[in-house]
Amino acid sequence: MFRAMLENVRKKTPLIHCITNYVTVNDVANMLLACGGSPIMADDIAEAAEITGLCNGLVINIGTLNTRTIDSMVAAGKRANALGHPVILDPVGAGASLFRTSTVFRLLDEVKFTVIRGNISEIKTVYKGSGNTKGVDADVSDIVTKENLWEAINFANELSRRTGAVIVITGAIDIVANGVNAYVIENGHPMMSKITGTGCMLTGVIGAFCAANPDNYWDAAACAVCSMGLCGEMAYEKMKLAEAGTSSYRMYLIDAMSGLNADILERGKKIASR
Amino acid sequence: MFRAMLENVRKKTPLIHCITNYVTVNDVANMLLACGGSPIMADDIAEAAEITGLCNGLVINIGTLNTRTIDSMVAAGKRANALGHPVILDPVGAGASLFRTSTVFRLLDEVKFTVIRGNISEIKTVYKGSGNTKGVDADVSDIVTKENLWEAINFANELSRRTGAVIVITGAIDIVANGVNAYVIENGHPMMSKITGTGCMLTGVIGAFCAANPDNYWDAAACAVCSMGLCGEMAYEKMKLAEAGTSSYRMYLIDAMSGLNADILERGKKIASR
Amino acid sequence: MFRAMLENVRKKTPLIHCITNYVTVNDVANMLLACGGSPIMADDIAEAAEITGLCNGLVINIGTLNTRTIDSMVAAGKRANALGHPVILDPVGAGASLFRTSTVFRLLDEVKFTVIRGNISEIKTVYKGSGNTKGVDADVSDIVTKENLWEAINFANELSRRTGAVIVITGAIDIVANGVNAYVIENGHPMMSKITGTGCMLTGVIGAFCAANPDNYWDAAACAVCSMGLCGEMAYEKMKLAEAGTSSYRMYLIDAMSGLNADILERGKKIASR
Repeated sequence: MFRAMLENVRKKTPLIHCITNYVTVNDVANMLLACGGSPIMADDIAEAAEITGLCNGLVINIGTLNTRTIDSMVAAGKRANALGHPVILDPVGAGASLFRTSTVFRLLDEVKFTVIRGNISEIKTVYKGSGNTKGVDADVSDIVTKENLWEAINFANELSRRTGAVIVITGAIDIVANGVNAYVIENGHPMMSKITGTGCMLTGVIGAFCAANPDNYWDAAACAVCSMGLCGEMAYEKMKLAEAGTSSYRMYLIDAMSGLNADILERGKKIASR
Repeated sequence: MFRAMLENVRKKTPLIHCITNYVTVNDVANMLLACGGSPIMADDIAEAAEITGLCNGLVINIGTLNTRTIDSMVAAGKRANALGHPVILDPVGAGASLFRTSTVFRLLDEVKFTVIRGNISEIKTVYKGSGNTKGVDADVSDIVTKENLWEAINFANELSRRTGAVIVITGAIDIVANGVNAYVIENGHPMMSKITGTGCMLTGVIGAFCAANPDNYWDAAACAVCSMGLCGEMAYEKMKLAEAGTSSYRMYLIDAMSGLNADILERGKKIASR
Repeated sequence: MFRAMLENVRKKTPLIHCITNYVTVNDVANMLLACGGSPIMADDIAEAAEITGLCNGLVINIGTLNTRTIDSMVAAGKRANALGHPVILDPVGAGASLFRTSTVFRLLDEVKFTVIRGNISEIKTVYKGSGNTKGVDADVSDIVTKENLWEAINFANELSRRTGAVIVITGAIDIVANGVNAYVIENGHPMMSKITGTGCMLTGVIGAFCAANPDNYWDAAACAVCSMGLCGEMAYEKMKLAEAGTSSYRMYLIDAMSGLNADILERGKKIASR
């Protein structure tokens, strides 16, 4: 099934409207192109909803949130909802400031999300209304391990039932929960946290996979998570071979996505259903 | 003549003021440096015209257009006009929203452009006042081929006469029209569309070539288009050899521009006058 | 001592709040990660001070200054001052417009800076209240050479006494002055000026070194300058070997920082105290 999902992205070239941060926006655009999608960035209220209308999916990322674009996020989100397009939320740094946390709750209130992806601290903030996010990284006390995995799955499923969204928690172990069941994914590599934007890029890729596979958002999100994690592993092999550093790693990561095919994905995915 | 034009850019290091989008701005800056120019980005109305006054050319790109910077574009454009500096317009996504289309027409009304560069759908929108731009890429129905080449040349020339600007339409076949004659350029590689920002980078490079060669903007723009396309070809050879992907391709593209010299350009250019 | 300083950055992972420009922000974030720090970018007045409160240091860079974020810079700066965190100023393009110059003076008036880093033209502007900055690069007439080195050291020391900040002037020869003494550093490579953002990246790295080494900001800044310059040298060797260009150079620069260790730094530093 993952085979068909990746091929759908490549075949349909879904156009993804991103309202995202200015730190990682270029990597998000290039990663979207690498996976087979097509990005368009537009954040002015004068065009946000209209641009969404041209697209097949919407990604909202609050990484460098500013007052000017919150209304644009809401307007684009409502239009995408009206059109039945998938809408993905990346609550970057939720819990790090009241501004981010309250904006996330306004967005949840006004827009129905298809998928919400964050690290464990961000998702806990969405779940509990407050959190201990340390900047844009997860707090150590929150990290998902084999020991607390069921606890994390349970709250992801509860949040999924409450919001109606597939919940994606990424870290050393990734969880993709649909309210009843959860995939546990162990693709990925610690190097992914040594560059900025791997989370943002994944959120973009989830947007493309959902837009190209509207029949099954849970699997589409899981397929995107596996694909990205697998690329993280392949990029590490390349980096080690080249005795290179973190900036090379960033390049190899996007390279790997552009070269990913269904055979590699099927062979490399590390996913289990719980 | 192209030989002298490239050497002029390298010798004069033209300072180019860019009011551009936040998606590809870093690549535009690095590509400008690679071709021999020097970039400065400044978009606040409090300094836009003053910064233009320090520079040798101005590039206006509406890729992530927002209400705040339109007045800055107009103010900088008027100052550049008053100083006789070249002003280049990249109407990214014109036709994709009313906001972009109407802003392009306001800019055309208030600023005299030296060169306007876009894909065929964007340039058709500028020509007709409305268009079927699909996001930031050209619509398939618009693509320039051997069959409809004359049609495209004719409307480029007509738009050139109407605006007084050299019109550059880029795609598999590039057209550079001055109102009477047109160059047809076949440099380039399809991989250029697999990364974000090749159009924006080219527009920046056109700014540098025009600023360094003010006697002949038509040839300067054509020289920039050949240079960029040739770099796209060389980058592809490198990528193939390295069995790499799209992010490597982006790097090789900028690398190629930084290593380009007059001999390589003269040997590699694929340009004909019609 | 430099040995311990680099190791402190790696051990403490200082979280650095950056209010910076959208041109080089991604490179700043990745360079901060490469040196051992952790970046967070946030520029809205609704959260700027709160985000600073979570962090260990603050970097203010006026590279694409806009009216909206000046108050955020002031608010974050005051909070960092209240918390005793290091605050680094990068007055990009000071002297290029009245807007930038007057903003720098407002910032100096309202915020106490730990370190101010710029090229010689920018620092002269801070010193004299006006300057002849050519865009974002130093004016040729200002360049520090063996001949005028003492003059530059003297005014750096005087500016340091006036502001209470360590003054870092970067160029072919770097000066790090604490009001009484100055380090003269000759690490670095001319290729560093062929890519955008090496100055911005260094300012970020200074932030991380100061945050991790609060007992001695003068040495921490000097250690950051040596580290960055040394990475510039190592990146050049890699580039030459690979017969690559400027975009590869940018990648090798960040790679070098991610692979830097205390032994390499101790062996490679070219620093003298005057």
